[in-house]
Amino acid sequence: MHFSKLDDIAAFCRDLPKGDSTAADAAAARQQVLTKPPGSLGRLEELAIWLARWQGREKPRLDRVAISVFAGNHGVAARGVSAYPAEVTAQMVANFSAGGAAINQIAGIAGAELTVEAIDLDRPTCDFTVSAAMDTDEFLRAFDIGFRSVPENCDLLAVGEMGIANTTTAAALCAALLGGGAERWAGRGTGVDDAGWARKRTAIEAALDFHRGILADPLRVAASIGGRELAAIAGSVLAARSRRIPVLLDGFVATSAVLPLARLAPDALEHCRAGHVSAEAGHRALLSEMKLDPLLDLGMRLGEASGAATAILLLRAALACHNGMASFAEAGVSGRA
Amino acid sequence: MHFSKLDDIAAFCRDLPKGDSTAADAAAARQQVLTKPPGSLGRLEELAIWLARWQGREKPRLDRVAISVFAGNHGVAARGVSAYPAEVTAQMVANFSAGGAAINQIAGIAGAELTVEAIDLDRPTCDFTVSAAMDTDEFLRAFDIGFRSVPENCDLLAVGEMGIANTTTAAALCAALLGGGAERWAGRGTGVDDAGWARKRTAIEAALDFHRGILADPLRVAASIGGRELAAIAGSVLAARSRRIPVLLDGFVATSAVLPLARLAPDALEHCRAGHVSAEAGHRALLSEMKLDPLLDLGMRLGEASGAATAILLLRAALACHNGMASFAEAGVSGRA
Repeated sequence: MHFSKLDDIAAFCRDLPKGDSTAADAAAARQQVLTKPPGSLGRLEELAIWLARWQGREKPRLDRVAISVFAGNHGVAARGVSAYPAEVTAQMVANFSAGGAAINQIAGIAGAELTVEAIDLDRPTCDFTVSAAMDTDEFLRAFDIGFRSVPENCDLLAVGEMGIANTTTAAALCAALLGGGAERWAGRGTGVDDAGWARKRTAIEAALDFHRGILADPLRVAASIGGRELAAIAGSVLAARSRRIPVLLDGFVATSAVLPLARLAPDALEHCRAGHVSAEAGHRALLSEMKLDPLLDLGMRLGEASGAATAILLLRAALACHNGMASFAEAGVSGRA
Repeated sequence: MHFSKLDDIAAFCRDLPKGDSTAADAAAARQQVLTKPPGSLGRLEELAIWLARWQGREKPRLDRVAISVFAGNHGVAARGVSAYPAEVTAQMVANFSAGGAAINQIAGIAGAELTVEAIDLDRPTCDFTVSAAMDTDEFLRAFDIGFRSVPENCDLLAVGEMGIANTTTAAALCAALLGGGAERWAGRGTGVDDAGWARKRTAIEAALDFHRGILADPLRVAASIGGRELAAIAGSVLAARSRRIPVLLDGFVATSAVLPLARLAPDALEHCRAGHVSAEAGHRALLSEMKLDPLLDLGMRLGEASGAATAILLLRAALACHNGMASFAEAGVSGRA
């Protein structure tokens, strides 16, 4: 697949494959005969059935789980919207490579392969308060990097990001597509102080004003008020959908990155689950708007796919039960009285 | 330790060891220098520090994790309060031994050793609507089985139960110690129908009336309106505390089992965390009364320690980050701007 213009993505989103209802129905029927009261594993049952639907197997597997983290730098960082300097993006990418970050440890526990793709860190996007962050070609290039990144024979994909100032980008993107202004979406990010938080809200309002003519077009918003790592996440999630690979989303930034897809096609994220709800102010509202019910609520706000990676552990528990439990008949356990 | 009367337990609860503040402070200091914004791993940070406090180590470990499931039968089951016949308790114990239950699968994923202790299944407790469920000696015997069950060199204990009709027992116990009557505490358990649910509420109200003279005494309530598996859980959690072993509690029944300890000594459960909040009606209210903030909220309602065992996975993620991450200095990452 090659996307040479924004409309190619929109057209692709209108023709997405559905999940496998036969496999999902078989998995749901299996859950009914396992040695437990029906429904008593709660969300673990729903997750097993969801994996069955997208993998097209009554007994899904998690042999190859991929975590993709995309990194980008943001012109708006120069406006003093983050607690950390922009150089931290590249330093953290080096930390990922050296195995020293949180996501390395959680990926290890979750039995997942971590891939980090840093996109043009030495060339931040333009400051979206006074221009488009990316032109169409730049956006499509980042989107394509994500689209091509999903590995072969992948049973599950978890997506996340690293990019100093990108909660400002995410908040601006949400405000542009969902309304409510900076007040609704601007949180503390990595822990910005009151003055920085005020600068963040000012930057978001300036972006909404500067780009007011394009707010009805989700992909133009993604290019003009977005970031390269967000574009790559959207590309990877769309590629996963085209191959019916289930996806776990990470926090506020990663979820905002796929919001444009949901605006293009209401069913575009049926293959996704929200790994967690983060402590970042706007994430709960964003998940609610997108009708995504998060698996974890642990007050995490790190990014790096750390919340999604933690949620992989729940999928492993769900599948272990689904694939490994005895049925009432096999175990000789009496049914309901 | 030998408990020959109820007052021995009460006296034991007045002299419990505290956690290790030095280790906890060292762990908290370590969290501040790891390559992430302070606090950005949310509850995973708090969990690492909690483990450090109770294990007495700046870098805690989870080399040996024990899951203890206690099983018991209940005289009140004869009142038609459950969707399943009482014989299912023993059948499920056999299923645990054969490796076919949910807890077997989750224990495997969590890297934990499962031990199941069935206590006098062929001899249900007395029907507590018309008599004491257990006399003092019976209660102490079950309590002692739990107290002695905690394995050597245990880094973490997760506790759970199996016992047809025991959500009726748990609800009666909560109503006795916390008030609010059957309405507040009686849920659907394994999925009882409306008529059975009404019988359940009637049984609980009858128990409250029959035992109205002893409701101010937590241990007499635990004996008279309790169950053997609940007594054993209380014993195991108290033994863990005496050896400073951190504990994950499971659902409504397991949490209600340790409520008497909390009533005896407000700090008795500082070494415990609630693994999850279950879908069983009274659990959220009970956790709130006990000031326990659950780690997971997945709509599970199976018992068997299944929720606590799932939460072990979160502790493994928390510790992997705590013990494995690089510091800002080690990784050469810039601090706050």
